[in-house]
Amino acid sequence: MLTLDKIYSAKYVLKQIIRETDIIRAPKINPDADIYLKTENLQITGSFKVRGAYFRMSRLSAEEKAKGVIACSAGNHAQGVALAAAKNGIKSIICLPDSAPISKIEATKSYGAEICLVKGVYDDAYAEALRQRDEYGYTFIHPFDDEDVIAGQGTIGLELLEQIPDMEAVIIPIGGGGLISGVAFAIKKLNPDIKVYGVQASGAPSMFNSIRDNKIERLESVSTIADGIAVKEPGENTYNLISEYVDDIVTVTDDEISAAILALMEQQKLVTEGAGAVSVAAAMFNKVPVKGKKTVCLLSGGNIDVTILSRVIKRGLLMSGRSCSMNIELIDKPGQLMDVSRIIAELGGNVTSIHHERANEGSAVNGCYLRIVLETRNYDHIEQIRQALTDAGFKILNIN
Amino acid sequence: MLTLDKIYSAKYVLKQIIRETDIIRAPKINPDADIYLKTENLQITGSFKVRGAYFRMSRLSAEEKAKGVIACSAGNHAQGVALAAAKNGIKSIICLPDSAPISKIEATKSYGAEICLVKGVYDDAYAEALRQRDEYGYTFIHPFDDEDVIAGQGTIGLELLEQIPDMEAVIIPIGGGGLISGVAFAIKKLNPDIKVYGVQASGAPSMFNSIRDNKIERLESVSTIADGIAVKEPGENTYNLISEYVDDIVTVTDDEISAAILALMEQQKLVTEGAGAVSVAAAMFNKVPVKGKKTVCLLSGGNIDVTILSRVIKRGLLMSGRSCSMNIELIDKPGQLMDVSRIIAELGGNVTSIHHERANEGSAVNGCYLRIVLETRNYDHIEQIRQALTDAGFKILNIN
Repeated sequence: MLTLDKIYSAKYVLKQIIRETDIIRAPKINPDADIYLKTENLQITGSFKVRGAYFRMSRLSAEEKAKGVIACSAGNHAQGVALAAAKNGIKSIICLPDSAPISKIEATKSYGAEICLVKGVYDDAYAEALRQRDEYGYTFIHPFDDEDVIAGQGTIGLELLEQIPDMEAVIIPIGGGGLISGVAFAIKKLNPDIKVYGVQASGAPSMFNSIRDNKIERLESVSTIADGIAVKEPGENTYNLISEYVDDIVTVTDDEISAAILALMEQQKLVTEGAGAVSVAAAMFNKVPVKGKKTVCLLSGGNIDVTILSRVIKRGLLMSGRSCSMNIELIDKPGQLMDVSRIIAELGGNVTSIHHERANEGSAVNGCYLRIVLETRNYDHIEQIRQALTDAGFKILNIN
Repeated sequence: MLTLDKIYSAKYVLKQIIRETDIIRAPKINPDADIYLKTENLQITGSFKVRGAYFRMSRLSAEEKAKGVIACSAGNHAQGVALAAAKNGIKSIICLPDSAPISKIEATKSYGAEICLVKGVYDDAYAEALRQRDEYGYTFIHPFDDEDVIAGQGTIGLELLEQIPDMEAVIIPIGGGGLISGVAFAIKKLNPDIKVYGVQASGAPSMFNSIRDNKIERLESVSTIADGIAVKEPGENTYNLISEYVDDIVTVTDDEISAAILALMEQQKLVTEGAGAVSVAAAMFNKVPVKGKKTVCLLSGGNIDVTILSRVIKRGLLMSGRSCSMNIELIDKPGQLMDVSRIIAELGGNVTSIHHERANEGSAVNGCYLRIVLETRNYDHIEQIRQALTDAGFKILNIN
């Protein structure tokens, strides 16, 4: 059974290994609330996972340590296990589906793990990990449904109670539920008045559904930008702990998660992955009752691929009117491109790409077609440019 | 005269206002050194500037406070002055050139300053600020060449000595020189064995040139991605302090700064502006002797426009082989586009944009021309795709 004792013991074991990550105030996330961020994205390995993995391994017998550990993950758990094993002087094997992104594989390798690429998807890699466990006697380190792992993650709860003892609510991402189980348990045991809310991605609501329906349910498929919490089926331990200690679970959409990632970058100078930002998305979009409350959003991790980050920024700029693309129909005579360019330049629009084509199917035979991408200041600025182009006689086919 | 007493006094005054920003280890920035980051990008207002501005204002007389303060800046100093004034209950006016980006103006307004947009460039806004000072009796808050301002920034030196007393070197960005003057003074007075290095952008080396030539020199123009340190002329106080207390000054290029910004995002989950990342660029590219040394890189700020950040990421992806664009010549017959798409997909390339055009001037009359942008894993992966396309008979005109 999980106990406070065990979480305190984890705290002691982890003291020399992990960072006590900072609390940072975030005044602009939701003007009606008093929001603070627990920055586990700044934890070593870029996520909280190293806490549970390290504590789990610290409790292995000498014989188990000598044989080594195995885990299955393409993400933060892999890196946590790899680093924790290295620091414990234990051999670690990480099974991954062969479709895993190179960047994740490289990061895991860099912490000293042996990589075992398995043909297929996650479930195939998982089966292979269990097979090797049985064949070689490795200890399997579960990513969430394990009491020691949960106790390790629970140390964040103890830190929060010390760092910001007058908090009124905490918002925590849920994938398999290991993080929130530990944190909620620690907090509720010590101060049951503090509200604990969980957040899932609406494209992977396995725990949300299970708690709603009072039984563990498995999703057929998951799809979300928050890949770190895209878990098909809750654990039994985590399901039970969440049922008892979590006040409510809500979901956020990929667009809300993207907006949260962008807000954290712009306002707080922090990089978070999708899973790491769902707590902020919930606070931004008032999914939980934060009004007037001193609320901590737990940023669980920051391991986002920069290509994805780049797409999130692009989408965020489009959605806030700071970038747009226009299709303009021109008459095919000299000087038209110059006129368009001049009008945009005079209004302070910054052209980043242009595509000019004649005799497009959508335009008249003697017409041509201009697709132009620009950096703008906001929606008013876009409207100003649109109006000026229209006034000058250009036909704008669409803007987006 | 600047004294340690004054810096200690600033530390006391600032205690309730600013964050004592965290030190974070950065193990991958330069594997030969032991690098730590002082995260002033996580300071309130997103930069260290609030320290100097607040301390300066705390020392105004009641009469001066009643009249208000004025400053000229389109950047971090503006936000620092605005917030410091608000916290002191003082009216603040910020003069900016009317070409300043909307985002900076909005941020400054949000901290409670009155904005005065001045037609022209920085020098015009500066002249207008001095004119209003003379007409209305406002106190002008200099961005760097002021002893109180320097003392305020110097509090970072005291924090470093407490947070990481065994550091052997500190690397600090230089614009006008206020930050490094205060920090170097504090550190050298208390532990002269610690090396203090300054970094400028190679596109704005005013202090670098002045120190080299032993006299204050003014640059005709400046051009760098690190706009926060693009200063044409050093201050007199800062020039003198740097001459005495700084061990060496080096410069870094815009490409090196971009690489540092990207590394900080990917490895450390921290957003920095160009000026804020020059210290890390210097450590990454061995511009200062960091080998084997416990070295602190000061991240001075994180206020970077996301459109610029987006460009930095794009460039970083291209430079590391994680994105590429290919021009391919096709024979104009059905199925060619499908073949190209299939080859790329089979090798795991991810197409993000495609542009297909017939009868381009650079191709044969019956040919057509395909420009394709893809996400790739690294240079080897690009080469693999290039080879497979070539083997299938496609002519690749160029890759970049």
